[in-house]
Amino acid sequence: MNIVLLDSRQTLSEIWTISAKRPIEHLKTHVDIQVGDTLRVGIRDGKRYLTEIISITENSIQIKPIQEELVPKKLPVTLVVALPRPKVLRRLVMDAITLGVDKLILIHSYRVDKSYWQTPFLQQLDHYVTLGLEQAGDTIAPKIELYKRFKPFTEDILPALITAQSPAYVAHPYVEQKMPSAIDHPCTIMIGPEGGFIPYEVDLLIKNGCQAVSLGNRIIRTETVIPYVLGRLFSAG
Amino acid sequence: MNIVLLDSRQTLSEIWTISAKRPIEHLKTHVDIQVGDTLRVGIRDGKRYLTEIISITENSIQIKPIQEELVPKKLPVTLVVALPRPKVLRRLVMDAITLGVDKLILIHSYRVDKSYWQTPFLQQLDHYVTLGLEQAGDTIAPKIELYKRFKPFTEDILPALITAQSPAYVAHPYVEQKMPSAIDHPCTIMIGPEGGFIPYEVDLLIKNGCQAVSLGNRIIRTETVIPYVLGRLFSAG
Repeated sequence: MNIVLLDSRQTLSEIWTISAKRPIEHLKTHVDIQVGDTLRVGIRDGKRYLTEIISITENSIQIKPIQEELVPKKLPVTLVVALPRPKVLRRLVMDAITLGVDKLILIHSYRVDKSYWQTPFLQQLDHYVTLGLEQAGDTIAPKIELYKRFKPFTEDILPALITAQSPAYVAHPYVEQKMPSAIDHPCTIMIGPEGGFIPYEVDLLIKNGCQAVSLGNRIIRTETVIPYVLGRLFSAG
Repeated sequence: MNIVLLDSRQTLSEIWTISAKRPIEHLKTHVDIQVGDTLRVGIRDGKRYLTEIISITENSIQIKPIQEELVPKKLPVTLVVALPRPKVLRRLVMDAITLGVDKLILIHSYRVDKSYWQTPFLQQLDHYVTLGLEQAGDTIAPKIELYKRFKPFTEDILPALITAQSPAYVAHPYVEQKMPSAIDHPCTIMIGPEGGFIPYEVDLLIKNGCQAVSLGNRIIRTETVIPYVLGRLFSAG
């Protein structure tokens, strides 16, 4: 936890109060905070501040904002990922949020086990969004959407995401064109499931405006390829 | 497992035999292989081939090489990482290998819990190297070195890694110079522990030839920052 998040209605007066159990426990146990220490605090969907701790009681911590800080910029990317198994999904969502993905879309695909859609994790996405923002020092939640059918997503939703200024890329091992790097425009990236999108799906993606691009001949897991591709695409920043 | 690895002495005749339990079990259970199927096989520290399955018995699979394939190129990078907790270490080692890191060095640092050096995982590194190569379709193990003391490493080992053509970078949040991108030369990257290198360590790294560079104001976990930085540095490839 590198920042404590508050709702804007908790920051209306001059002195703010942290009253949620989890941050208080964390600050007492892991940080050993004392009155007079500084603390980074973000207002959900708002600004971020360096604050000073005014008082500490069992159930609340009072703070006073000292100085505004920069909220980290988002990456102008829509990340579309075939739903992975629950263990990988947790890491993937956390990575997407901490790296600043603007919009995350989880979709079905032929090689996605249908049982993955039953994972309780999908009911707890809001909690993991909070954890990711706290980790990154960010205040603005990414947009998250779920589509349980591949074809309607690809034919009805995807084309609306693609413009001349914002192309979509699907990683594919057997094409000549390389995944672009150091781009200075927004884009959509499609990441397939373990084993990849099936040829029918790749064809449908291309027919609906995706460009197939190669990342080389290493086979990289979904959870590893996401930070790798984001680092490559936005290396101009 | 995207490739089966054999020792070179197993590939001296025209027909090769896979006799290790783990790949046989994997191929039978997860891939449901049949005689006549093709199979990707790599020779440790050697070439990679597409092969054809000739026979399948309970304890062995016989194959015949059909065609040589490209072994994925390594990234010309020495990755130096402060030893993370065991759970993160496993993922970090796997990522480094699958992404093609040429050399991985694990070091101590002030914020590394000394107990981390006792993890049984460090005794099993060879096994995870194999898993990583099998995942990536690579045949050549990265070099791995461990240094349990920060100062001797930084003063005696690090300077020998740095040349005019191969600089070293340490990620540091409060400097102007950005982490480079799309480089076309080898380099060394230093990744600190959770909470970062302490100022004394950063100073010692800089004194011994490291350049402090910034990755922006997001706080990214060790295991996420590694693929992110590698994607950024080698985006020209």
